[in-house]
Amino acid sequence: MSQKEKTTIVLFSGELDKAIAAFIIANGAAAYDHEVTIFCTFWGLNTLRKDQPVPVKKGWLERVFGAMMPRGANKLGMSKMNFAGMGPKMIKHVMKKHNALSLPQLIELAREQGVKLVACTMTMDLLGLQKEELMDEIEYAGVAAYLGDASDAKVNLFI
Amino acid sequence: MSQKEKTTIVLFSGELDKAIAAFIIANGAAAYDHEVTIFCTFWGLNTLRKDQPVPVKKGWLERVFGAMMPRGANKLGMSKMNFAGMGPKMIKHVMKKHNALSLPQLIELAREQGVKLVACTMTMDLLGLQKEELMDEIEYAGVAAYLGDASDAKVNLFI
Amino acid sequence: MSQKEKTTIVLFSGELDKAIAAFIIANGAAAYDHEVTIFCTFWGLNTLRKDQPVPVKKGWLERVFGAMMPRGANKLGMSKMNFAGMGPKMIKHVMKKHNALSLPQLIELAREQGVKLVACTMTMDLLGLQKEELMDEIEYAGVAAYLGDASDAKVNLFI
Repeated sequence: MSQKEKTTIVLFSGELDKAIAAFIIANGAAAYDHEVTIFCTFWGLNTLRKDQPVPVKKGWLERVFGAMMPRGANKLGMSKMNFAGMGPKMIKHVMKKHNALSLPQLIELAREQGVKLVACTMTMDLLGLQKEELMDEIEYAGVAAYLGDASDAKVNLFI
Repeated sequence: MSQKEKTTIVLFSGELDKAIAAFIIANGAAAYDHEVTIFCTFWGLNTLRKDQPVPVKKGWLERVFGAMMPRGANKLGMSKMNFAGMGPKMIKHVMKKHNALSLPQLIELAREQGVKLVACTMTMDLLGLQKEELMDEIEYAGVAAYLGDASDAKVNLFI
Repeated sequence: MSQKEKTTIVLFSGELDKAIAAFIIANGAAAYDHEVTIFCTFWGLNTLRKDQPVPVKKGWLERVFGAMMPRGANKLGMSKMNFAGMGPKMIKHVMKKHNALSLPQLIELAREQGVKLVACTMTMDLLGLQKEELMDEIEYAGVAAYLGDASDAKVNLFI
């Protein structure tokens, strides 16, 4: 068990606004010198997807899931006011105007600060996502590893 | 205060994918020998409903709520990619294919492991749900009991 | 660091049912003598809006956001069974029938009990909300202040 304070976030949701909130909290905690883990599961895995299709072998149902789900941080919709894709454009516009970091920049900053990004292997199996389709240099684990981190942490959020 | 580590989950959401996440985390924590409580409130109560209508006396508004809300773990929709009910079928199919436990099996396992399932009495009143309509052998409590458990717990999630 | 137990809630969601859940938990924790903070960010800021338009200078995009988002606790929709606005009416009806406090009353009670209501300044900027448009006598802070509170707290929820 480390001496540092720990913060864990389960990122279950696949929406742009929720992912932004998760990475802002994670970056804040890392700046405070917490050990931070973001455990991406279910739709949260889409945040970790590469934005280009990756040639991998899949069954048809996994292909359907793969095609329907957004490819990466730049393609996510909103939980509210999505307006058929206009909402994300509006939010990205105001974020740029206010010099706020975009989601891909927030993710990059998180990696620079040593935030541990974990893909949930069980839901990768269910949704048919393979390691080649996700960002490089992330970790792969299951619920046991998450609970190990969370039990040591002071701040645990499910987003 | 017990010696065991505690984990609590408020299950507010009534979607299949979120309920699966809640019960996977709960079962993982129970396997780690945590004392685990799932406090079901609002739409999370639907996870605890019996799948057959139960004859109880109700006002008309309670009847409307009762008829509109899904009856139990097998009837829940998805938070994403619901596709008018095709989404849950697809998820159930891939879960079976990967030998993952279904939600009813996850609930059964949770009960075997001693996870405490609690129905929020205040929201039962609001939604017009009666004890006869929910699973047998669960507990009934309010926010005070939840906070008592959560204050002793290391991992507290709102799902 | 105070001797009192602390509870923090990030209120990210802008739906009536989730806001009710947040304020019921907050009021319960305050009744237990916890120091409670509700950090309102993104759509959760709408809970803090005054219900009348306030004349402030804004750009056009901020005006669009302002006009599309609900003005205050009385105007929020539901996360489920919204039925084009009928859902909130039904819930408010059953809450009144069961003598449950309405959301505005829950907020008032929270303020009387000393629950700290905080508006996230970063998302206020993004959504173009100005202090004059939000309730009087709330606090304004960013993620650093939230993390300071959360690190001392036993119960931290993201709603």
